Amino acid sequence: MNKYRLLAPGPTPVAAETALAMAVPLPHHRGSAFRAVLERVRAQLAPVFGTRGDVLVLTCSGTGAMEASVVNLLSPGDLAITVRGGKFGERWSELLAVHGCQEVPIDVPWGQSVDPLAVERALDAHPNARAVFVQATETSTGVLHPVRELAALTRDRPDVALVVDGITAVGVLPMPMDEWGIDVLIAGSQKAFMIPPGLAFIALSDKAWAMSERARLPRFYFDLRRERDTQTKGQTAWTPAISLVLGLSDVLDRLHAEGLDAAYARQAVLAAATRAALVALGFRLVAADSPSPALTATFAPAGVDAAALVRRLRDDHGIVVSGGQGDLKGRILRIGHLGYVDRFDVLAIAGALELALAAEGRSGTLGVAVTAAQRVLGSEAAMAAGRSRPD
Amino acid sequence: MNKYRLLAPGPTPVAAETALAMAVPLPHHRGSAFRAVLERVRAQLAPVFGTRGDVLVLTCSGTGAMEASVVNLLSPGDLAITVRGGKFGERWSELLAVHGCQEVPIDVPWGQSVDPLAVERALDAHPNARAVFVQATETSTGVLHPVRELAALTRDRPDVALVVDGITAVGVLPMPMDEWGIDVLIAGSQKAFMIPPGLAFIALSDKAWAMSERARLPRFYFDLRRERDTQTKGQTAWTPAISLVLGLSDVLDRLHAEGLDAAYARQAVLAAATRAALVALGFRLVAADSPSPALTATFAPAGVDAAALVRRLRDDHGIVVSGGQGDLKGRILRIGHLGYVDRFDVLAIAGALELALAAEGRSGTLGVAVTAAQRVLGSEAAMAAGRSRPD
Repeated sequence: MNKYRLLAPGPTPVAAETALAMAVPLPHHRGSAFRAVLERVRAQLAPVFGTRGDVLVLTCSGTGAMEASVVNLLSPGDLAITVRGGKFGERWSELLAVHGCQEVPIDVPWGQSVDPLAVERALDAHPNARAVFVQATETSTGVLHPVRELAALTRDRPDVALVVDGITAVGVLPMPMDEWGIDVLIAGSQKAFMIPPGLAFIALSDKAWAMSERARLPRFYFDLRRERDTQTKGQTAWTPAISLVLGLSDVLDRLHAEGLDAAYARQAVLAAATRAALVALGFRLVAADSPSPALTATFAPAGVDAAALVRRLRDDHGIVVSGGQGDLKGRILRIGHLGYVDRFDVLAIAGALELALAAEGRSGTLGVAVTAAQRVLGSEAAMAAGRSRPD
Repeated sequence: MNKYRLLAPGPTPVAAETALAMAVPLPHHRGSAFRAVLERVRAQLAPVFGTRGDVLVLTCSGTGAMEASVVNLLSPGDLAITVRGGKFGERWSELLAVHGCQEVPIDVPWGQSVDPLAVERALDAHPNARAVFVQATETSTGVLHPVRELAALTRDRPDVALVVDGITAVGVLPMPMDEWGIDVLIAGSQKAFMIPPGLAFIALSDKAWAMSERARLPRFYFDLRRERDTQTKGQTAWTPAISLVLGLSDVLDRLHAEGLDAAYARQAVLAAATRAALVALGFRLVAADSPSPALTATFAPAGVDAAALVRRLRDDHGIVVSGGQGDLKGRILRIGHLGYVDRFDVLAIAGALELALAAEGRSGTLGVAVTAAQRVLGSEAAMAAGRSRPD
């Protein structure tokens, strides 16, 4: 018997308490009980986004919210700068092409974070650019892009919005949109928000809302002005995924009870422990220089088949991690340590990797990764972060 | 203590078994376990849609699927005929306007079904029309539009698609799209499919798929060609609402165990019993001539405030029904009897209406509605329909 452990970079594990919170009889989405839940979750999402503005709850995957950011800001023919250093960066290109917008792509080698200077040069060279589209965490490589530095470039340009796909970042690390000057910030339910996929969250700055009044791309289901005007009255424009909103309310209660700073510290420690375990076993990290605390992408040690390792973790040890995408398909593992994950989940993946490598014929692996992880988990800073949590 | 009874025309009650089926640890949406579930639900949805083609599972509300039907069939400037006899009919107008299409509206008084002759005349007068958009059940009035007759008008016109919003119809009554010649059929998870909102289902005829190749309206999240190409490989294009798909699988197993014909018969009997109860109490039905078996919309008896009655049912009796929308706001009740509803739920609403009217000072109401309902429920045909069910 192996317990099932979902350690992918999304979807992430759902706590049993949350699963049961979603299993209650449904309130009607136009009634007062649901209104109270929606108002509460929107109020509790705002500090996670670091905004005094509205966080909107959309019933769609993160990609739907990415499309919403395009169609609510731009008009046909508008030019936008994209940061492309992975599968999700490339999604901006697809979206802009579909909607007849022009693109200035900044291609970044997969696994590297974008140089803010490259974005500044593109902004200077293209004064007609209306937006910069970027991922906070590029989920296909585990890299963290320098969102704060990018926001410093756009915040004083009144006609340029910084759009941040924070799907695998919001709730994992601080992303204070008002303070930094992010104009659109997107998140997804199945990541740090610890509920199943089906909801996305999006918040806009005043600059972005002003752009949405001028934007002429057609939108209906994703019309954020309509959502804002309805959600500020306690309802959603369209029938929402009610059960997921109930689960979200449960999660946000517990996330705020833990404390955002404690949650960020926990996720940073888990990421550091995971990376230490991998490096100790001879894995080479994909995003070595700028790793996201949400997930760790890693090449397998020389001579080990990454895809086989993913299968072995699943079949022998009950642990589901993700493989690579695009050019990295079959070449890497992507291990999620965001959301409802604790230090002993990290020990489980460290131990499973040791056992899996031993089964592949490697010697000297046993104890190496779990010890490296424990050194991080038992460090003074990590223990302090742990103690600050009420659980 | 009053039990909570959700008898709205959507969302509809979720069985406890289904709620628990959604509470299990999530499979990853790119893994083999979820693939098996998705393939199974798509195979089980096909007979409900009456199609040998693909039924696609979308993560959105029904409105998202309505927008998908527009953007996948039409190009800017295209002309379409709409049937507008309620709030949801009017949604087609909004969608067409947003996407720069021309509209020939056929306005039908709320509560009446469209005359197929009016549609035929519009088709003849506008040979450049590319589509007819209609609701099977107009949820704001409870009327049933003559979809089969409309399909007979469009099926031999190679350049005109019949698009049917079957959100409050598919699974409630037979809607065999291949046999009738419906080109696009849309359904929603929170109606006859007895799970929470968050999924929509859509199927296209060969004619509609051919139109989707020529259509030039921009679409990405709602690009049905991409969904088809991905779902036929056992995945969804975007991260799906995994837990809802698990619930759907549970529901479809039980719907097919009951048998589609038995389910349709059950829902017809419940509708007839509800209408009999209402008429016996002096209520006047909104859609008297062509009522949908999914819901019954009704004016309150003279001198009774419909909105107050909705509140009284909720506050005194734990029963949630819907009020009116648009011009009918505050003037009607809308009672859902689709999905996970049985004959004693109908007795509950009949009894609650009697008690509510008595509390409003009416005399002679007690026993009247429940007796009228029982006469329908105990009729030979109804009992035969009941006996054919395994439960």
